[in-house]
Amino acid sequence: MSIQTNPHAVASAARHSKPLALRSVTVTDAFWHAEQELVRTAVIPFQWNALNDNVPGAAPSYCMHNFKAAAAQNARRNGNDDRKAYPPEFSYRGFAVLPKDGEAPDPDKFYGFVFQDTDFSKWIEAVGYSLTQHPDAELEATADKAIDIVCAAQLDNGYLDTYYILNGMDRAFHNLRWHHELYCLGHLIEGAIAYYEGTGKDKLLKAACRFADYTAEYFGPKADQCKGYPGHEIAEMALARLADLTGEKKYLDLARFFIDERGTEPNYFLAEDKRDKDTGYTDANWDFDPSYAQAHKPVREQKEAVGHAVRAGYLYSGMAAVAKLSDDDSLVEACETLWRNIVDKKLYVTGGIGGTNNGEAFSYDYDLPNDAAYSESCAAISLAFFARRMLEIAPKAEYADVMEQALYNTTLAGMALDGKSFFYVNPLEVNPYANHRDKRLGHVKTVRQKWFGCACCPPNIARIVESVQEYAYTVGNDGSTLYTHLYMGGVAKAVLGGAAVELTTNANLPWQGDGKVVVKLGEATTFTLAFRLPGWAGSVDAAAGAISASGEADGRVVRSVRDGYVYFAGQWHDGDEVVFNFPMPVRMMKANPMVREDAGRVAFVRGPITFCAEERDNGANLHLLHADVAAILADPDSVKVVPFEFHAGAAGIDADGQGEVDDVERDMVRLEVPAWREPVPAGTDAESPAFAPLYAEYRPVRREPVTATLIPYFAWANRGENEMTVFLHD
Amino acid sequence: MSIQTNPHAVASAARHSKPLALRSVTVTDAFWHAEQELVRTAVIPFQWNALNDNVPGAAPSYCMHNFKAAAAQNARRNGNDDRKAYPPEFSYRGFAVLPKDGEAPDPDKFYGFVFQDTDFSKWIEAVGYSLTQHPDAELEATADKAIDIVCAAQLDNGYLDTYYILNGMDRAFHNLRWHHELYCLGHLIEGAIAYYEGTGKDKLLKAACRFADYTAEYFGPKADQCKGYPGHEIAEMALARLADLTGEKKYLDLARFFIDERGTEPNYFLAEDKRDKDTGYTDANWDFDPSYAQAHKPVREQKEAVGHAVRAGYLYSGMAAVAKLSDDDSLVEACETLWRNIVDKKLYVTGGIGGTNNGEAFSYDYDLPNDAAYSESCAAISLAFFARRMLEIAPKAEYADVMEQALYNTTLAGMALDGKSFFYVNPLEVNPYANHRDKRLGHVKTVRQKWFGCACCPPNIARIVESVQEYAYTVGNDGSTLYTHLYMGGVAKAVLGGAAVELTTNANLPWQGDGKVVVKLGEATTFTLAFRLPGWAGSVDAAAGAISASGEADGRVVRSVRDGYVYFAGQWHDGDEVVFNFPMPVRMMKANPMVREDAGRVAFVRGPITFCAEERDNGANLHLLHADVAAILADPDSVKVVPFEFHAGAAGIDADGQGEVDDVERDMVRLEVPAWREPVPAGTDAESPAFAPLYAEYRPVRREPVTATLIPYFAWANRGENEMTVFLHD
Repeated sequence: MSIQTNPHAVASAARHSKPLALRSVTVTDAFWHAEQELVRTAVIPFQWNALNDNVPGAAPSYCMHNFKAAAAQNARRNGNDDRKAYPPEFSYRGFAVLPKDGEAPDPDKFYGFVFQDTDFSKWIEAVGYSLTQHPDAELEATADKAIDIVCAAQLDNGYLDTYYILNGMDRAFHNLRWHHELYCLGHLIEGAIAYYEGTGKDKLLKAACRFADYTAEYFGPKADQCKGYPGHEIAEMALARLADLTGEKKYLDLARFFIDERGTEPNYFLAEDKRDKDTGYTDANWDFDPSYAQAHKPVREQKEAVGHAVRAGYLYSGMAAVAKLSDDDSLVEACETLWRNIVDKKLYVTGGIGGTNNGEAFSYDYDLPNDAAYSESCAAISLAFFARRMLEIAPKAEYADVMEQALYNTTLAGMALDGKSFFYVNPLEVNPYANHRDKRLGHVKTVRQKWFGCACCPPNIARIVESVQEYAYTVGNDGSTLYTHLYMGGVAKAVLGGAAVELTTNANLPWQGDGKVVVKLGEATTFTLAFRLPGWAGSVDAAAGAISASGEADGRVVRSVRDGYVYFAGQWHDGDEVVFNFPMPVRMMKANPMVREDAGRVAFVRGPITFCAEERDNGANLHLLHADVAAILADPDSVKVVPFEFHAGAAGIDADGQGEVDDVERDMVRLEVPAWREPVPAGTDAESPAFAPLYAEYRPVRREPVTATLIPYFAWANRGENEMTVFLHD
Repeated sequence: MSIQTNPHAVASAARHSKPLALRSVTVTDAFWHAEQELVRTAVIPFQWNALNDNVPGAAPSYCMHNFKAAAAQNARRNGNDDRKAYPPEFSYRGFAVLPKDGEAPDPDKFYGFVFQDTDFSKWIEAVGYSLTQHPDAELEATADKAIDIVCAAQLDNGYLDTYYILNGMDRAFHNLRWHHELYCLGHLIEGAIAYYEGTGKDKLLKAACRFADYTAEYFGPKADQCKGYPGHEIAEMALARLADLTGEKKYLDLARFFIDERGTEPNYFLAEDKRDKDTGYTDANWDFDPSYAQAHKPVREQKEAVGHAVRAGYLYSGMAAVAKLSDDDSLVEACETLWRNIVDKKLYVTGGIGGTNNGEAFSYDYDLPNDAAYSESCAAISLAFFARRMLEIAPKAEYADVMEQALYNTTLAGMALDGKSFFYVNPLEVNPYANHRDKRLGHVKTVRQKWFGCACCPPNIARIVESVQEYAYTVGNDGSTLYTHLYMGGVAKAVLGGAAVELTTNANLPWQGDGKVVVKLGEATTFTLAFRLPGWAGSVDAAAGAISASGEADGRVVRSVRDGYVYFAGQWHDGDEVVFNFPMPVRMMKANPMVREDAGRVAFVRGPITFCAEERDNGANLHLLHADVAAILADPDSVKVVPFEFHAGAAGIDADGQGEVDDVERDMVRLEVPAWREPVPAGTDAESPAFAPLYAEYRPVRREPVTATLIPYFAWANRGENEMTVFLHD
């Protein structure tokens, strides 16, 4: 390990910081408050119905069914680890097990995916976050009852995964590459902590600790301990969080064990795969690919982000969390290397990651297809997780820029503006005609779907939206620096330099770059307020020139700039203000020429928002709509920024009956961009009698001048099924 | 049926024509003679070894093994139809059956694909054609011995498909949608006719007739006859050819029955699919898609070319053949409709068809991906089949233009210049880096392969190349018109107006548009010589002005022009000449704007040849190479046409050891095109320490002027693995 080998690696405990506790921040921001209310009023109740199989027309989750079945079994058997043979009919790859057609579910049987328990954990996590902002006795009572059921399903030894409890414990922790017990553990911990922090109630947290204790006994470096690690990561980041909360070193040790062991030789997953074939447990005729689960080499030797993108994002988040808590420079360096690979070569301009549906995975460097994108909502969320943890290691504006990009664009695009339907896959270009005919695009939906059998994305969106204020602020390890990463209207309380400080922020993000922060405190106190200089505001100098602190004038507060943050250090008085007005120009972006899919194309970005063109505003055949780049270069002001009220409400739904959106209205900004259209030749329509040759000698294209209307990407597909594109031809 | 509804339909027996018999045409053409010699000296011997499992390193075919096993069984059982239970282990979808790893093949068992018999039939067809041009006693003796084995495998009742003969006849003709008995019948007929025409020997032809007789008893309109039709078409065109040769109406009736029955309700394939599920013969959990086999509706109601492209091309060829022989206007109209759809919306500029690997099929209108193309060699061949048969119905230059395009480009691209390796899939754009990493491109090979387990393409190329002169000439039904469709050096003999006429053609196609035809005959005779005016020569007037007959000067011969053909009618004398010098400009082509994949791109075509850029000549990152369209429009002569000697020979082979090509030389023409390059930014290389952002604000691209070197598409991938593109960015 050497810092010199990587100029980007900056690991220093002195620069570490930690998010403000959720309950210390109140969100009043027009933009995020609306999103949080949507989740609170629409998504959380829907989720509860979904995990209780009470959504008409949606595939049952069986999540609470399974917990109840396990609880009932425990009641009969006193919660003991009842080792029984694993029934052979269960899929070793963990596909969903469902009741036979027409048969009612057996109350004693497990149904659904192996990770179905996490439906509850993700819900309780969102509930916990929601209750910090918005106490709700009825919701809390419902949650408490659910927690009672979940806890009753736990075995006496602490094990808690209903798939194995109900199907026989013989093979528990024996199929780590495909089954998801450690993933369930991770989500249980995240949910339990959120609920504890939201309500102060620790019943679920204790259960989670007991499952973590059991796991910490089972896995580890000792000779008699298992040397495996999660097939789907998340336990790493969850255990680090649990260690941070409880001060229990063993949880951090377990997280570190999972990270350090991953991808070492002999490869655990390959050995497991071989054993399962040798014993006939699986008749798969192909070998497990360890890179799918980032287990192809030790994490510190991984230079490229590969495999399933959500797994990867969760692993990298866990690595960053453990690196910070254990001050591990080599792990920081590994995180920096993977970060650079993602941000420099594998990131969509919408903040999405995962270019291929093959394995829902990262594709190779610079392969970022627009129409065939995977860009799973959960993957963008995992990138925000990773970015936040990198920020906690060292505050650098790039981390916050990417985090903001992932949050405002792909994460929010995953949910309709009425909070009732969701995208799993977030393409950057959709042509419904093609999508309905091309099996290669089978993974891409043209409109949001009501719910998924494998419902990872909706609850993931719910939990990140409900906790978004955790992404806005961190407090430095020095106890005297408060970092503002995202400009979000609201009130943040912190103890700085030993004094209770309250910052009230007014901001107009993402539509305007201006705002004000008012400091409230008792006696004058010395501390530092650090503010991110957003990458979208232009140069660091330009951004730094657009923010000032009232204490600067009389020299009480001194500014310095480092890594894209401005630090105002000195003595603060009650009523001091920090005022900012960051430039928010429209930026016409071009991808690196090595991105073949974006050759000859441009995308429009303003502030944190990436824009897109929809057919609804621009007519059909968006591939014939060209940005007039020459006109825009000659006069950047020719692109108009127009505040408007966006009206959602699906004009039509697709053939599967999906895509319905309630009539809701949201204030937004649209762009009106100088553009031209190549005319559609007569005769291309199947019904037209005119003849249009398939190939003709090149003639300069007739350019029909038009104005392209671009709306925020997160708002696409809220007005019925239609064409959409982020990149326009130039 | 009404001609008025389709202005393109021109069905008139008076305009029908028929190819000159193969032995009536001698090919001396520098271009095609070389191709035929390649097939004769390299491919046919290799094929023989392949179907006898004598190619080291290649997967065994088991073709002759199966015939021998069936013959041996017949010898024991007197060739009788031995109804025995069909073994359950055989794939209902007809996948290859192979000996278990490490075990020697059982001499009494069937191995390979259900259509493995056709390896022989395609070989004997190429052999038959080859022997007409190049008698070879040793080859003929080998073929005769093989024919003895094949005929010995035939059952007494005429049935001849070793898959069922060896596996039990209980289910013969019971899985028409997936198994290939009728496909085997079709290929057997084609091979038998070719061998009969090449040698005069009729043993195989009699066997083929007996199988056809058996089939004509089994299928048909009578109550006790089966109402099925081929899952993979070809029998239709083969039976029509057999009817034409033998004068036996029942073969034409059977072909017509297959065509008329296809896609009618109740759908035969769906009924078969349901029966097989109901009886447990298959546990497939998906339904057969009749459109895959063009059986989704009656053929006269089909308006769009859909499904497996080779199946489709063979069906349409069969429809055209039957339409001509039975003067069926409604069937001609159906052919015209499907032709228009292909040519106007589904044809690659390389003459290839089939845009998607899903089902090796036609994609939707205007979906012609370059890198993910399927464009199977066999599909281009099937398009040439279809075009030739449309020409026989009515001579129209468009049919010949497309036929020529398919022959000179994708068909020949399927074979290396040394005749030893083959493409199945013919992409229009290859980037080996991407191809090796992107599973979505898994069907695309970057270099030609030695042989395929499913070896349809190499023998298909062999049979069409060896019979290419059949595509050059037809004689009108009036007995007094000889059509020249392709300008090919050689001698053609025909009887015109009752007189024996010999045309000697000298031509320099595809590199120059000039040439001369000398007429040899006894007494002066009245007849018509018709010549195609190639679409690539510009307007019909321009092309017509570039060809003249010596009899025109004194009024003995009078010209007229119709449908892109010039007709010289009148009295011909021995020694008369027709001289032509068609313009052959370089044409910079643009696809119809509805082809999204080709937006902002141009392709270069000259005469019948489509060109492409290879990395070998132009450096890596071909997507950054732009044609300087403004310069080319301003001065078309800025594109240089350069005759040169192309040196094949692989500089390197790919990771699988494929792609080796012998050092062979061929005279060709290359294009040198004004172009510019967008520079590759520093830092995009994984090893480079420089930083290149993934997205940056748009700046006008720095254009590095270069000359792009384009070679004929058929010659690509003969100099090692490298990038290639047909379309350049503009």
